[in-house]
Amino acid sequence: MIQTKAHANTHTYFDHNATTPVCKEVLAALPEFAEAWGNASSIHWAGRQPKNIIRDARKAVADAVGASSLEIIFTVGGSEANNTVIKGVFEHNQSAQFLPAEQRRRTHYMCSAVEHPAVFKTMMHMKSLGVRVDVIPVNRKGEIDLKFYEEHLTEETALVSVMFANNETGTLFPIKQMAEMAHAKGALFHTDAVQAFGKVPVNLHELGVDFASFSGHKFYSIKGSGFLYSRKGSNFSPLIHGGAQERHRRGGTENTMGIGCLGVVAKRVSMIEDKARTVRALRDHMEKRLVSEIADVTVTAGESPRLPNTSSLVLLGVDGETMLMSMDIKGYAVSTGAACSSGNPEPSPVLLAMGLTRDEAQNSLRVSLGWDTTLEQVDSFVETLKAVVARLRSLKDDEGDSLHV
Amino acid sequence: MIQTKAHANTHTYFDHNATTPVCKEVLAALPEFAEAWGNASSIHWAGRQPKNIIRDARKAVADAVGASSLEIIFTVGGSEANNTVIKGVFEHNQSAQFLPAEQRRRTHYMCSAVEHPAVFKTMMHMKSLGVRVDVIPVNRKGEIDLKFYEEHLTEETALVSVMFANNETGTLFPIKQMAEMAHAKGALFHTDAVQAFGKVPVNLHELGVDFASFSGHKFYSIKGSGFLYSRKGSNFSPLIHGGAQERHRRGGTENTMGIGCLGVVAKRVSMIEDKARTVRALRDHMEKRLVSEIADVTVTAGESPRLPNTSSLVLLGVDGETMLMSMDIKGYAVSTGAACSSGNPEPSPVLLAMGLTRDEAQNSLRVSLGWDTTLEQVDSFVETLKAVVARLRSLKDDEGDSLHV
Ligand SMILES: Cc1ncc(COP(=O)(O)O)c(C=O)c1O
Ligand SMILES: Cc1ncc(COP(=O)(O)O)c(C=O)c1O
Repeated sequence: MIQTKAHANTHTYFDHNATTPVCKEVLAALPEFAEAWGNASSIHWAGRQPKNIIRDARKAVADAVGASSLEIIFTVGGSEANNTVIKGVFEHNQSAQFLPAEQRRRTHYMCSAVEHPAVFKTMMHMKSLGVRVDVIPVNRKGEIDLKFYEEHLTEETALVSVMFANNETGTLFPIKQMAEMAHAKGALFHTDAVQAFGKVPVNLHELGVDFASFSGHKFYSIKGSGFLYSRKGSNFSPLIHGGAQERHRRGGTENTMGIGCLGVVAKRVSMIEDKARTVRALRDHMEKRLVSEIADVTVTAGESPRLPNTSSLVLLGVDGETMLMSMDIKGYAVSTGAACSSGNPEPSPVLLAMGLTRDEAQNSLRVSLGWDTTLEQVDSFVETLKAVVARLRSLKDDEGDSLHV
Repeated sequence: MIQTKAHANTHTYFDHNATTPVCKEVLAALPEFAEAWGNASSIHWAGRQPKNIIRDARKAVADAVGASSLEIIFTVGGSEANNTVIKGVFEHNQSAQFLPAEQRRRTHYMCSAVEHPAVFKTMMHMKSLGVRVDVIPVNRKGEIDLKFYEEHLTEETALVSVMFANNETGTLFPIKQMAEMAHAKGALFHTDAVQAFGKVPVNLHELGVDFASFSGHKFYSIKGSGFLYSRKGSNFSPLIHGGAQERHRRGGTENTMGIGCLGVVAKRVSMIEDKARTVRALRDHMEKRLVSEIADVTVTAGESPRLPNTSSLVLLGVDGETMLMSMDIKGYAVSTGAACSSGNPEPSPVLLAMGLTRDEAQNSLRVSLGWDTTLEQVDSFVETLKAVVARLRSLKDDEGDSLHV
């Protein structure tokens, strides 16, 4: 992993769910990809090298997630992939006059209450365009309400979107079972797997989903790279109309560098299980120390199946944003929720949707470890957080609520 | 400009409208941007460097096109920008219940007959969703039919999209005048300026358009970088819903590297006029030689205002694809039309729309020069093309049409 020189010794990055450093294998490959500057669609010499890089990456990515090359559509990231599926299924149903009336009639959508905004806001947008959207509740243990799901799934349901793993709590959802339930009603099933890949093994053919979204910068590739899995036979209207790229499913000149880098990390997939074991041990060690050494700490959804690297902590009486900034001063990067809503003073909508109180949500901190996290980093993080929490709690005792202003 | 070693001496790139090499200033900056791997939306230390890179690039890009920073929305490229405007204006009108009925009623769209597929196919998609689309004719001189335009523009027109410069012929359109005409009817005006920037000066505030699309890889930046200009006050529904990035106008983790590279090339904007003069002289020299030294050669729309670097040639009796491949063997990269439709045996829809015959369109070759093109390259290109055309014509005389199979 690279770290800028100024940060090399003094900075510890515990915010891997927001983004990851670029791994050295990707950094090493960048010049080769930059040299392949031709347009991959050109049929002369300048197109050949990019075309090969892309073909090779597509195969590597497909292999890494248990899919076949034809099922991989390169995108710029997870948000684009999510929007492609949700809007694309809707528009396909709207515009495809040749679809059986049965299919066109499907105007019901579902997603979980804890989706990333790239799914949730897109669903709310669909609602503004006139479709019906049901939101499946998730409780504070991180369990999704399968009874609600079953009751609301109908022959009118076009698409269900439930994330593989939650970005804030790490909670894993029963995707395989939920996809089967959707299919029984003739509905399509999408999973936002952005937080899963690189942290736990993912096998799409085994899962049986129709669509899945991935983002390279969450697993040590560069930003601006991602992909959508679209099961053979799953149709959608492109989000980006234009040239014939990606077999007419996504227009725009191929981003050889982003795609090539995805291929590089995809080839490292075999190490995921090992990494996951190590990271899980470190995370569990960290949580054990935090819970036993700091008063009033709980791990949100700590008893449920979770990603191995993520801890969503509630530290009662301490404002999350203040903790984040105090930890930042000491060199630790953590977060209060999704990075894309950083700077937003509102407590996390995901935690509120799970039934945490406003105070609990406001007192939350997300810690997410990575492949290169060490025991020393974890231990000094615990010591630092202990000191920070003690100081903030004592200040609060002294000064009332002024720190929360 | 970089060229892979194997190509350094033997390969000449005359397909700059398909894509450009990455300039050395961008290559030099790549490692700095790769090191800024943090999420620009993070509020801890890892977010600061990316945030600064992006702020700086936004300013540089805005300055380069005569806009202000708040009007720049970074995208992955030109196709995304085009789709954002067309679909976004439509969905904004559909979903914004608070809009005056007058505005919601606008369901008429217009574009020219020679738009890039990223505009044209998107318009045809809108049509499949039920809106009315009129296509403004363009004649074989490259002149757009302003009378048709005036007659079809109504108070129901929501959006007009006419490209700044055509990617196949280089033809320039009277954007300022057409935007004024649209505004007189209360319609919005978008221009796909992907082929313009880097080739001719572009000043958006002066042009008075509401939206304009740009793509970094067409002006010596890396692929996967582009931007949309959205004039202050112009509203659209995001193509990519999600996080609060780009002031809620485009979700997804910021692609720091792509954005930073755009900033680097934008800072080179002052050299465009000089480069344009040099390139124009080379292009005119090339055309003069081709027309006088090869029989039956015409330059499509050669008398109209054009980009300084582009030649769209008709070489009667010689199949374009065969010429392309013969020139490729000699090391010259040229094209028969848009790169995104390369490998498609159909003649260019743009040339057909301009009224060229099928034969003329099939006998076309696009030559597009770049900032680093030299007189020696142009002269040896002319010699090579002369020889190739002579050989193909003589083969054709001998063997009938067999080469066209
Ligand atoms: C006029 C025009 N518009 C749009 C595009 C698409 O741009 P991009 O490949 O960056 O999506 C191109 C390039 O092929 C073009 O020439
Ligand atoms: C679960 C989830 N989905 C989607 C995204 C968006 O991915 P990207 O930033 O690549 O668009 C994120 C990252 O913020 C995420 O955590």
